[in-house]
Amino acid sequence: MAQSPSTHRRLQSSDLEVFVARSLTAVGLPASDAEQAARLMILADLRGADGHGIFRLPQYVRRIRAGGMNVRPNIRVARETEATALVDGDNGMGHLVMRFAAQVAMDKAAHAGIGWVGVRQGNHAGPAALYAMMLLARDMIGIYMAVGNANHMPPWGGVELLLSTNPIAVAIPALEERPIVLDMATSVAAYGKVKTKAQRGEQMPEGWMIDALGRSLTDPKRAEEGFLLPIGGYKGYGLALVFGLLAGTLNGAAFGRDVIDFNKDDKTPTNTGQVILALDVARFSTVETFKRSVDAVIREMRNSRKMHGVERIRLPGEQSHATWLERSAAGIPMNDTLFKDLQRLASDLGIEGLPS
Amino acid sequence: MAQSPSTHRRLQSSDLEVFVARSLTAVGLPASDAEQAARLMILADLRGADGHGIFRLPQYVRRIRAGGMNVRPNIRVARETEATALVDGDNGMGHLVMRFAAQVAMDKAAHAGIGWVGVRQGNHAGPAALYAMMLLARDMIGIYMAVGNANHMPPWGGVELLLSTNPIAVAIPALEERPIVLDMATSVAAYGKVKTKAQRGEQMPEGWMIDALGRSLTDPKRAEEGFLLPIGGYKGYGLALVFGLLAGTLNGAAFGRDVIDFNKDDKTPTNTGQVILALDVARFSTVETFKRSVDAVIREMRNSRKMHGVERIRLPGEQSHATWLERSAAGIPMNDTLFKDLQRLASDLGIEGLPS
Repeated sequence: MAQSPSTHRRLQSSDLEVFVARSLTAVGLPASDAEQAARLMILADLRGADGHGIFRLPQYVRRIRAGGMNVRPNIRVARETEATALVDGDNGMGHLVMRFAAQVAMDKAAHAGIGWVGVRQGNHAGPAALYAMMLLARDMIGIYMAVGNANHMPPWGGVELLLSTNPIAVAIPALEERPIVLDMATSVAAYGKVKTKAQRGEQMPEGWMIDALGRSLTDPKRAEEGFLLPIGGYKGYGLALVFGLLAGTLNGAAFGRDVIDFNKDDKTPTNTGQVILALDVARFSTVETFKRSVDAVIREMRNSRKMHGVERIRLPGEQSHATWLERSAAGIPMNDTLFKDLQRLASDLGIEGLPS
Repeated sequence: MAQSPSTHRRLQSSDLEVFVARSLTAVGLPASDAEQAARLMILADLRGADGHGIFRLPQYVRRIRAGGMNVRPNIRVARETEATALVDGDNGMGHLVMRFAAQVAMDKAAHAGIGWVGVRQGNHAGPAALYAMMLLARDMIGIYMAVGNANHMPPWGGVELLLSTNPIAVAIPALEERPIVLDMATSVAAYGKVKTKAQRGEQMPEGWMIDALGRSLTDPKRAEEGFLLPIGGYKGYGLALVFGLLAGTLNGAAFGRDVIDFNKDDKTPTNTGQVILALDVARFSTVETFKRSVDAVIREMRNSRKMHGVERIRLPGEQSHATWLERSAAGIPMNDTLFKDLQRLASDLGIEGLPS
């Protein structure tokens, strides 16, 4: 993650976690829930997902205050089989709902080899990778899909915003190497990145967005006039559609025109849908054999011949891990705009602000 | 599917099925296996997957004669839990192995709500959609991933061909509408399409392939000098990688440098890896409610406002279904080159040729 010129300070992740937890407690979350959500939000920042971490705090607080999110949800399994479950998040914070769902998926997989857990009545839960990665500690493969919380893509050939950037994450354990952690939107760029560009006063590269007449759109402040482009044209449209049906429709969660734009509407429950799949590696191979094979694949890719001018062949998750290492040591960079927003939030909530 | 100028005749699918079954029987397959494989191969042609149907017959026959494929395999479940299985294809024809695996996946899902079945020692099985679609009849959602049978993509930033176009298919049932059937390679174009272009003497559009210096490559006869581009750049690379790890590495099947180029090597067993997942809709919702919701999504997309100049907003699988309808009625178009190849094959095998 290159630092933009407007990045003026670094804050320790522990300070940010405390601040987020304090803010969420101030608006009514039980302390332990606030701490769990804070830890996951700041993990997003540590991994470089700047549009998905503390950046979202003012918005979450606004939604909670507007009555759009339940601070004391009864998150529960609504239906289940030996290997599947449908979790009702009771409109709780997405991070808490997804953490619960991931736990259910792991328990199912420990028993039946696989656990597929769908979520309804959830909320925005930050980066997809967080939940897929939770399963790595138990030598499981994690797959996560979600319906995004605002529609920014039309179906291929259309101009109405009926699809979100519906992301997928896949986490696969390795032995000596870092795990593979793919986390990608089905659009060329995630909308969080557009928001970050706007906040930093930067332009977007061509290919991220077009306007309704099909012209390139590079000013993130004009994002509302256009839409994100799916990867591979109609293929990315197809992926966004099927991920939406699996994570949304199948669970009785919002998809398509039902999706609430959570950037504009703080009040209406989003009924966010997600799905987490846990697969127990040991049911296919010994764990060590599999992890060694993953190591071998990673090294084969990394050490293969590079195109002229390319410094390093990266594996999915490598850059996020490097960012995590760097930010864990040196702190999380924060630009003035966000810092001021958060200090204003603190004074608004009557809590202690960030260390300046 | 536009007809190319070199398409001279139409053949009835039943005639083609009989011909394929006769050819496979001639090289040693039991009659019922030959018929099953023939049916799936011609279904590929009916659906417009011209690079994956009867076009592959001479190659399959060559491989069988060279000892590279087992005509009397013992296809079996090597490991299993209530909801997962690892199928060993014993180097049988991919179509037969995958048909078996899909059946196991459905049986698991009927019992446990979900069935994840990995395959090793399989072979090329034609279009991904065929297997995901098998589950629709039982009101299940099907997801299929495979390691392709020749490497045509480097890792992002590299030039060594370590990845295939590793496809995914997702089939989702609807009520009054046609089911959603996504079937896509993780490359901008499937290699089968490149081969079809070459055989028809046509040029490829820009964006399908580049050469090792990064220059656009549009002559399909020069395909060996370059490589396919992944969708969304590093994202498509990430998808090809994780699909390969899930369909190949996890099952003890080939992936990366181990992949045999089945276009060049007829002798070495390919140890093809695939995975099929069956998910029982009824464990999440009533089947009718879900299918009605899918209908609603389909209509919402199709009837939304179109970009200027666009005639119709399509859903995944719509075009393949239209092709299936048209070819079921009017026959499967075949160009002279392929027709002659097949008649030569017939005389070579000492069997009756195609009706001319």
